[in-house]
Amino acid sequence: MARNLTTIGFDADDTLWHNERFFQITQERFGALLRDYADPDHLSERLLEAERRNLGHYGFGIKGFMLSMIETALEVTSDRVPGSVIHEIISAGQEMLRHPIELLSHAREAVEVLAAEYQLVLITKGDLLDQERKLAQSGLGELFDAVEIVSDKTPETYRAAFARHGDGPGHAMMVGNSMKSDVLPAIEAGGWGVFIPHGIEWELEKAEPPVGVSRYAELVDLGELPSLVEAIG
Amino acid sequence: MARNLTTIGFDADDTLWHNERFFQITQERFGALLRDYADPDHLSERLLEAERRNLGHYGFGIKGFMLSMIETALEVTSDRVPGSVIHEIISAGQEMLRHPIELLSHAREAVEVLAAEYQLVLITKGDLLDQERKLAQSGLGELFDAVEIVSDKTPETYRAAFARHGDGPGHAMMVGNSMKSDVLPAIEAGGWGVFIPHGIEWELEKAEPPVGVSRYAELVDLGELPSLVEAIG
Repeated sequence: MARNLTTIGFDADDTLWHNERFFQITQERFGALLRDYADPDHLSERLLEAERRNLGHYGFGIKGFMLSMIETALEVTSDRVPGSVIHEIISAGQEMLRHPIELLSHAREAVEVLAAEYQLVLITKGDLLDQERKLAQSGLGELFDAVEIVSDKTPETYRAAFARHGDGPGHAMMVGNSMKSDVLPAIEAGGWGVFIPHGIEWELEKAEPPVGVSRYAELVDLGELPSLVEAIG
Repeated sequence: MARNLTTIGFDADDTLWHNERFFQITQERFGALLRDYADPDHLSERLLEAERRNLGHYGFGIKGFMLSMIETALEVTSDRVPGSVIHEIISAGQEMLRHPIELLSHAREAVEVLAAEYQLVLITKGDLLDQERKLAQSGLGELFDAVEIVSDKTPETYRAAFARHGDGPGHAMMVGNSMKSDVLPAIEAGGWGVFIPHGIEWELEKAEPPVGVSRYAELVDLGELPSLVEAIG
């Protein structure tokens, strides 16, 4: 009998390993550096505004975040920011780039169990080099059948990825922490969408959950994934 | 009769369209901005050193170049660089990111002619978003059967790409302006390597041509490619 589900896609950052946490820590350090020039809330707003403005140029990732922090530091000080502060921002960003990755709870066991029976595909936005390094450091690389680093996550992205690495979106599930990028477009493509909220969420990735959709589930963590997958069959 | 050649890989920057030229123009602007702090030759050396040091973190692309320029500006001024100069560096980089692409001579005609009979694969390093945007702007996107944005170009990269999108490296040719990244590893993988020097060459990409290799050719421009391909058969 043909199986309902043959392929599982995973988002990477904040689905398999911590990521946003490091952005938040760096952002706090950024706030402290510019304490004398701007109050923290105003600074955060300006930074988010810069990130939004630069997304089309910079895409997702640490380098773009570094450049948006530098731009915001110039903006809130009318270019009077000391060089030493820019220096600190660059050091903070380079530290993020060097940061060893930390797996989220149950990530390894869920991926190991599912890899035995399903095709696993990592589908993630972000810098190519950055994501490849994190996957290698995670120790999970060998368990994935394919890796797709994409510049955007639309229904077409999932249709193409699951056609290439599986039996089409109708037999595929996407698992991620972003309702907007992981869950909704995968369901729209005809697949299952599984939402595992991460707690810290980037403003630009927020969206409402789908209503009355049977191919949707929300889980507390990856530990619950294998039994959900088994139930679908 | 089986054909010798079924698949042609193309590098992108400075093979199909101008790229290094824009880095050079920006670098001159960078030199002018820091004229009061460092002589141009010394500054270029420091910048190259920073690019080399940061390559593992930043990869190839404009964002990494921007960050290395900022780092170099801090370095040569002992952090005393004015904010207005950092501001100018960011503007210069954003201008590079916005720059419409300019095809190299004969690029369009060569790609059009070859697309009719061969599988064409774009194989390029650099920022994912950056390269996708350039391919879309080039108007050549539809003529390629596949696009591989890779973080490194080794014999294994070419073996995998030509296995995935063709009949293996033995029936494939790689065309590019970098002896080190495009030509030598493609030949080592068992394919043809075609070198089309671009004139301006990035220091980190220089290498000697292969000696006594029949699967190597050097061309003046892409206009010569279709007849070379036809001769191989």
